[in-house]
Amino acid sequence: MIDSIPLVTPQIAHFSVPLPLKSGALLAAYDLVYETHGQLNAAHSNAILVCHALSGNHHIAGYHQASDKKPGWWDNMIGPGKPIDTRKFFVIGVNNLGGCHGSTGPASINPDTGMAWGSNFPMMTVADWVDTQARLADVLEIRQFAAVVGGSLGGMQALHWSIAYPERVRHCLVIAAAPHLTAQNIAFNDVARQAILTDPDFHGGDYYAHHTTPKRGLKLARMLGHITYLSDDVMGSKFGRVLRHAAINYGYDVEFEIESYLRYQGDKFAESFDANTYLLMTKALDYFDPAHEAGSLKAALAPSMAEFLVISFTTDWRFAPERSREIVRALLDNERRVSYAEIDSAHGHDAFLMPDPHYHALINAYMDRISL
Amino acid sequence: MIDSIPLVTPQIAHFSVPLPLKSGALLAAYDLVYETHGQLNAAHSNAILVCHALSGNHHIAGYHQASDKKPGWWDNMIGPGKPIDTRKFFVIGVNNLGGCHGSTGPASINPDTGMAWGSNFPMMTVADWVDTQARLADVLEIRQFAAVVGGSLGGMQALHWSIAYPERVRHCLVIAAAPHLTAQNIAFNDVARQAILTDPDFHGGDYYAHHTTPKRGLKLARMLGHITYLSDDVMGSKFGRVLRHAAINYGYDVEFEIESYLRYQGDKFAESFDANTYLLMTKALDYFDPAHEAGSLKAALAPSMAEFLVISFTTDWRFAPERSREIVRALLDNERRVSYAEIDSAHGHDAFLMPDPHYHALINAYMDRISL
Repeated sequence: MIDSIPLVTPQIAHFSVPLPLKSGALLAAYDLVYETHGQLNAAHSNAILVCHALSGNHHIAGYHQASDKKPGWWDNMIGPGKPIDTRKFFVIGVNNLGGCHGSTGPASINPDTGMAWGSNFPMMTVADWVDTQARLADVLEIRQFAAVVGGSLGGMQALHWSIAYPERVRHCLVIAAAPHLTAQNIAFNDVARQAILTDPDFHGGDYYAHHTTPKRGLKLARMLGHITYLSDDVMGSKFGRVLRHAAINYGYDVEFEIESYLRYQGDKFAESFDANTYLLMTKALDYFDPAHEAGSLKAALAPSMAEFLVISFTTDWRFAPERSREIVRALLDNERRVSYAEIDSAHGHDAFLMPDPHYHALINAYMDRISL
Repeated sequence: MIDSIPLVTPQIAHFSVPLPLKSGALLAAYDLVYETHGQLNAAHSNAILVCHALSGNHHIAGYHQASDKKPGWWDNMIGPGKPIDTRKFFVIGVNNLGGCHGSTGPASINPDTGMAWGSNFPMMTVADWVDTQARLADVLEIRQFAAVVGGSLGGMQALHWSIAYPERVRHCLVIAAAPHLTAQNIAFNDVARQAILTDPDFHGGDYYAHHTTPKRGLKLARMLGHITYLSDDVMGSKFGRVLRHAAINYGYDVEFEIESYLRYQGDKFAESFDANTYLLMTKALDYFDPAHEAGSLKAALAPSMAEFLVISFTTDWRFAPERSREIVRALLDNERRVSYAEIDSAHGHDAFLMPDPHYHALINAYMDRISL
């Protein structure tokens, strides 16, 4: 289970300078949990920030304990000799504010009340997360990242980094992302949210005090999300119409393998993830729209100074290649240096997490040419 | 509100010959509610059967009462001078067995118990519905239909008619359908079902006795269904990222117009439709797979004697044109007469219900050449 990478120990940074949020709220103090891989060099010029997506966290690679069954979520990408090579780079994963893996979030205790924040936890935006990540970079004495990297919602954070802190990002890797959600994307998110919000165990977001969790709703949200992460093709080839048992049983228990898979994924997720975090993550996705404030995506990206690598996957229908091309066009209109690749993959949106050789070779080649 | 079409009065046919079902269950007796438009000619050769989809019913056109706000669900297609012209044809709409609009279904009283059938109502299949429709045709003294017509799940019934009762169908119109569901289709159905099945108000399907209805679950199911009926494009052009209020309010109430639309549609549906009917309709969709039993779609369609019109819509991603082409290929392999059209439409799966001029002209031309 453990390869050459040593065990990694998450660290906590406490921030007591109040954080003004996009929503207008002010967060007096908060913690961020993060982990690092590799060594920061003397010039502090080899740092990589990895931003996570909806259900991700700071545990990007390696193992926390020798008994862990699984490594961090992007272990195939990050490590010694891997595309994001920790022998060259100092790689940082942060659990986003509002998360449920150690950073301050809805399940944390609100010092004003002595109770879980619950429904009083402020709404987060991509811009807020980038601000908190910049503060963490200050603590770690990283003036400028060699690269900010992210897939999906993480790609949105990477993109926003290049807008909000242009002088602090040399390279920006935006993978399987979009400049904003479509109506259909928002619609799927809203169904997922309604599933959670209308679960009787949700108690208006204050379920912690009721010693319940809205598992039914969170399970539905995850099942639905999962469908949109996979391509129609890969679902067909992986599950097709294969039955779980020898024959149809004409009932509402699992009949098809795809049902078994989705329900299992939903149950597993609902056991381990906080529903309020899920809700606010989907809202951050919905809100992200740099073009809206700036008037156009070109205008939004005008401040950026980074070099870009934009990657999309052919069967990703959640954030289709066309959405990445919008980003590329806006960067070209700003005469930014941008590389773009549309990777041929059957895996839909999930492809950004998969060890596709072409995809990994591309990241590897790009990271290789980053000078420190 | 009322045009030239006279008011139509639904009728009830009672059947007391036990019905053997695909599931192995036997239904001792049942009612079917139906309505008819136009006049059956002396030769009984001008009858058209219109099969409905998931949320449809027997009310296909016209008005039941002068005070009705809306006509039947396919009023733009069926009526005097319309593509399915009731001056030429005798057009029949039937509420499928298991429905919730007058035919025997889960909310009906089970004579064995004196209580609502609820969870004891048997599971339905497309083949069962076709059998019940054939029995109704017997009652109406229709030996052979001039055409059997249906969209979506209704198209599956039309297709099955040509297989199960080949000598009783002269023309078969299969619109926006598929020869079976994909894993992704089943996955969406299962999320919808889980939303209903896990609603605490569902009570294992016996909510009638508890004087509740699983509205939360049914609303979620409908919201999700609705996303899959519309194209990404039409959602974008109709709603885009338009906000409901002047600014984002950073909360979980409606923020985007698409959320408002979907929640409204969900609420409206949950008020008027029976959750058990919704469940069994989605299962009938999942089960439909004539190729599976016959070995191939070609073999399944070998008995058919009808002439076919198969229609798909370019932006329908629920039952994409490719799925209709599978049907067309199998018919051609059987040397059947088949016309096929892929209609350019922005409306996704819902296009089959829309009054697109090209689509209507096509149906009109096809129906026109049917000899009586």
